[in-house]
Amino acid sequence: MNTLPWSHHSFTAPFTTTGRAALVKAPPWHYAGWLLNVAFRFDADTAAALVPPAAGRPTGTGCVHFADWQACTDGHELLDPVLAQYRETIVVLELERPDGTRCAYCPAIWVDQDISLVRGLLQGWPKKIGSTWLTRSLPLDHPAASPLRAGSRLGASLAVKDRRVLEARAELTGDVGRPLGFLALPTIGAVGWPDLRRPADLPQPVLVKPDIVDRVGGGWHAATASLQLTAHPQEDIGLLGDIQAIEASAGWMGITVRGALDA
Amino acid sequence: MNTLPWSHHSFTAPFTTTGRAALVKAPPWHYAGWLLNVAFRFDADTAAALVPPAAGRPTGTGCVHFADWQACTDGHELLDPVLAQYRETIVVLELERPDGTRCAYCPAIWVDQDISLVRGLLQGWPKKIGSTWLTRSLPLDHPAASPLRAGSRLGASLAVKDRRVLEARAELTGDVGRPLGFLALPTIGAVGWPDLRRPADLPQPVLVKPDIVDRVGGGWHAATASLQLTAHPQEDIGLLGDIQAIEASAGWMGITVRGALDA
Amino acid sequence: MNTLPWSHHSFTAPFTTTGRAALVKAPPWHYAGWLLNVAFRFDADTAAALVPPAAGRPTGTGCVHFADWQACTDGHELLDPVLAQYRETIVVLELERPDGTRCAYCPAIWVDQDISLVRGLLQGWPKKIGSTWLTRSLPLDHPAASPLRAGSRLGASLAVKDRRVLEARAELTGDVGRPLGFLALPTIGAVGWPDLRRPADLPQPVLVKPDIVDRVGGGWHAATASLQLTAHPQEDIGLLGDIQAIEASAGWMGITVRGALDA
Amino acid sequence: MNTLPWSHHSFTAPFTTTGRAALVKAPPWHYAGWLLNVAFRFDADTAAALVPPAAGRPTGTGCVHFADWQACTDGHELLDPVLAQYRETIVVLELERPDGTRCAYCPAIWVDQDISLVRGLLQGWPKKIGSTWLTRSLPLDHPAASPLRAGSRLGASLAVKDRRVLEARAELTGDVGRPLGFLALPTIGAVGWPDLRRPADLPQPVLVKPDIVDRVGGGWHAATASLQLTAHPQEDIGLLGDIQAIEASAGWMGITVRGALDA
Repeated sequence: MNTLPWSHHSFTAPFTTTGRAALVKAPPWHYAGWLLNVAFRFDADTAAALVPPAAGRPTGTGCVHFADWQACTDGHELLDPVLAQYRETIVVLELERPDGTRCAYCPAIWVDQDISLVRGLLQGWPKKIGSTWLTRSLPLDHPAASPLRAGSRLGASLAVKDRRVLEARAELTGDVGRPLGFLALPTIGAVGWPDLRRPADLPQPVLVKPDIVDRVGGGWHAATASLQLTAHPQEDIGLLGDIQAIEASAGWMGITVRGALDA
Repeated sequence: MNTLPWSHHSFTAPFTTTGRAALVKAPPWHYAGWLLNVAFRFDADTAAALVPPAAGRPTGTGCVHFADWQACTDGHELLDPVLAQYRETIVVLELERPDGTRCAYCPAIWVDQDISLVRGLLQGWPKKIGSTWLTRSLPLDHPAASPLRAGSRLGASLAVKDRRVLEARAELTGDVGRPLGFLALPTIGAVGWPDLRRPADLPQPVLVKPDIVDRVGGGWHAATASLQLTAHPQEDIGLLGDIQAIEASAGWMGITVRGALDA
Repeated sequence: MNTLPWSHHSFTAPFTTTGRAALVKAPPWHYAGWLLNVAFRFDADTAAALVPPAAGRPTGTGCVHFADWQACTDGHELLDPVLAQYRETIVVLELERPDGTRCAYCPAIWVDQDISLVRGLLQGWPKKIGSTWLTRSLPLDHPAASPLRAGSRLGASLAVKDRRVLEARAELTGDVGRPLGFLALPTIGAVGWPDLRRPADLPQPVLVKPDIVDRVGGGWHAATASLQLTAHPQEDIGLLGDIQAIEASAGWMGITVRGALDA
Repeated sequence: MNTLPWSHHSFTAPFTTTGRAALVKAPPWHYAGWLLNVAFRFDADTAAALVPPAAGRPTGTGCVHFADWQACTDGHELLDPVLAQYRETIVVLELERPDGTRCAYCPAIWVDQDISLVRGLLQGWPKKIGSTWLTRSLPLDHPAASPLRAGSRLGASLAVKDRRVLEARAELTGDVGRPLGFLALPTIGAVGWPDLRRPADLPQPVLVKPDIVDRVGGGWHAATASLQLTAHPQEDIGLLGDIQAIEASAGWMGITVRGALDA
């Protein structure tokens, strides 16, 4: 009986004939934000536990992105910004794919809002709730503004379930910076859902990559940075071992995603 | 390439060989909590938009449950209660099933924590983040304790994205109360996920019911109650129309779920 | 015994010889932020209940400022931005002072962080905790960026104890805007504390104004706006009556406060 | 001009003729809650920096109370429990007073709500915002209930500005427990406010003790416990040194405060 077709209009639950209440609306999804990107070295051997072999092998270089986003579909979210804004911390690892090319893969990401959490899970970004803080550069010459110029200092932090996991400190150099992490490489995600009717079976994820139709910004500002990782009892991030910041950049970027492709 | 089997140990994302970081661990899931249950009448015609026809037709009676939960798997969560505790507001509607029996169906539910959110989606509880407050009865004879006796008053509220949606006020009568809503009827949920590789296709949910292996408590305390619903621009809950509280009860209950069954 | 001098080093509680833990450090206090300012007309008769007669009489014009701040003392807060960032909603009313001059007075303000809450109370900003959301203009040509150009739309909201109190929608005109509210007038606050040893006595507040030593920015961008106020059972803001937006502006500003002066 | 009397009706800011919006209403204040109390030994020498000499000298014994409160004035808060409920972590140190008697003194306390924060500052509890979690005992025989019987385990944690500071784990012994910390000793607080018109002057606090008119409950349940303290860069709590849990109890209690007395 439960296989009868049902003409609801919801992209995600709840499923209703209006579709109004769906937590996530169908793409395209527009994102614009301020990011601090800190590339780091990690232990590629222990971190292999975090990566599907079919995706590739960790090279030992990754990136943490601290991001302060504004996102929307048709734009109504910008008029009620509780629907649009969130902060998140994204960890990506550079992989060497079986075909020898490079990609990024996200083994861990934390966000502070539900719409983004489920939207992320659908894309293979394994989001959980976490608390991200990130200094912003304001276009002012003032001690509290951290303006975009040499010597300005920025900080960022992530806490998960009331434990601080990541902390970064950065100082702008005044030089042009580079796109790092998921800004520089195609990024693969693993999507899968268990079926509670067979609770002993683990999901077999599929690998996807985002279908990006628009990308703007990218005037990255270089920074020196330090990065501190503290292992967390409910997280695998400690498997990255002793991480070392190697390069950083900050700036604004916008992107539009209309779906996903097989990866 | 992405169909190669992968021996991870995660019930949900992220998928890693340790399984440690999975947001939701495999069942059994144990829940114990304090609940205020307010049964109400609603407009069965407009509310039909909220219910899969295969599940049944709304009878015009439903229940709001305001719940203050403690949940765990192997019990480690009780030693770090940020992992165990959450509050939620559950709306269920009574349905007449195609076979003439009665069941409950949940068209809307809001929780304040990520583990419960995804665990709910897997069970067909269409959870989003919301803020629930609920007066507790403490075993004290004191003006701030709302003890379990005739005349004690309790309040509850739900806000979603900073807008108050539901408010209840109750007064204990001193009489024995009844189980209401999902406490009294088998409850059906709709589970489905879109596939971003085909973003124009909406998911076709399957109907499931929880596989419950343990249920304790249920010493319900009767109350009179009022209930106020305010429509919300991102929610369908306003389709319940003018709701009227008809019966209420409060108390503690525990339940253990080990998976789901076809409904 | 409790009048013996004590050589602690705390500006506010807790009082310790290190002074490290004081919630608020001594000024100067540096603030930089993004603001949406919406000037409005209100009922000057009913609103008189919100204003100390010694401060002046409401003229019937006021301003709501939705602000997204970064604040610091010696700058260490910018490296750990959970200490620096907060959002708040500021309501100020224009007064005609007894001497015929104009000033602004703040009868209500809500912030989302403790440091700012107590720092505000010391300045005569009667802060409570509230949830403010505010669209930001990002320097990108992208649907989610609301860039600073004609036609971009911004939204803002305030919720207090899970009830939405204020909502604004604005559209940039492309014209130069004006400083409004506390950005345009000297602003008076009322500071007072009850003494629990005499709980029947209400405090008799003193009127102060900030001692500002630096102010930057103010390249305001004009906007048309609407503003919606919903009365709140624990607030007096409903005494403003039917408010009407009359002018709006958005932009960044920085300010440094080193103390207060008698007003 | 600012010394003219003003017939407002607010116990705390904002000061209005209705008094409705005052964050804190005049006492009496009724509190009822569930507490986990963990007595500990600490370094009395380094901790002396946290205590006014006029209050006494630390003996080397203190207590952390993790509390889940419900508080009200005339009871309306119990009908809208966002106004009534909060969680907090209270640290008290036992002092030997100059007259040789014993008292408790609170050098640090963190709460998650504004009403309680300011009410605490008025009583000499130096409250800041912090996140407290605390397992509750529910009257159920269920794996998630931690009922009040030998072998049940409870956990508690405090995080301040996204850093975990205190963690406790307890196991009920089945024996009768004792009141500990502020439940067993008269408790002194230091109240003081700086005046921003003289920002270089630190406040000279007065010492007060609560004027308690009602106290109920106290059926304490004994527990063994461990306690872990992590120093925090913005806190003085690390001056307690290596702390060691020595005794614990859990239970419900109610208290009513009508003001303060000189201490």
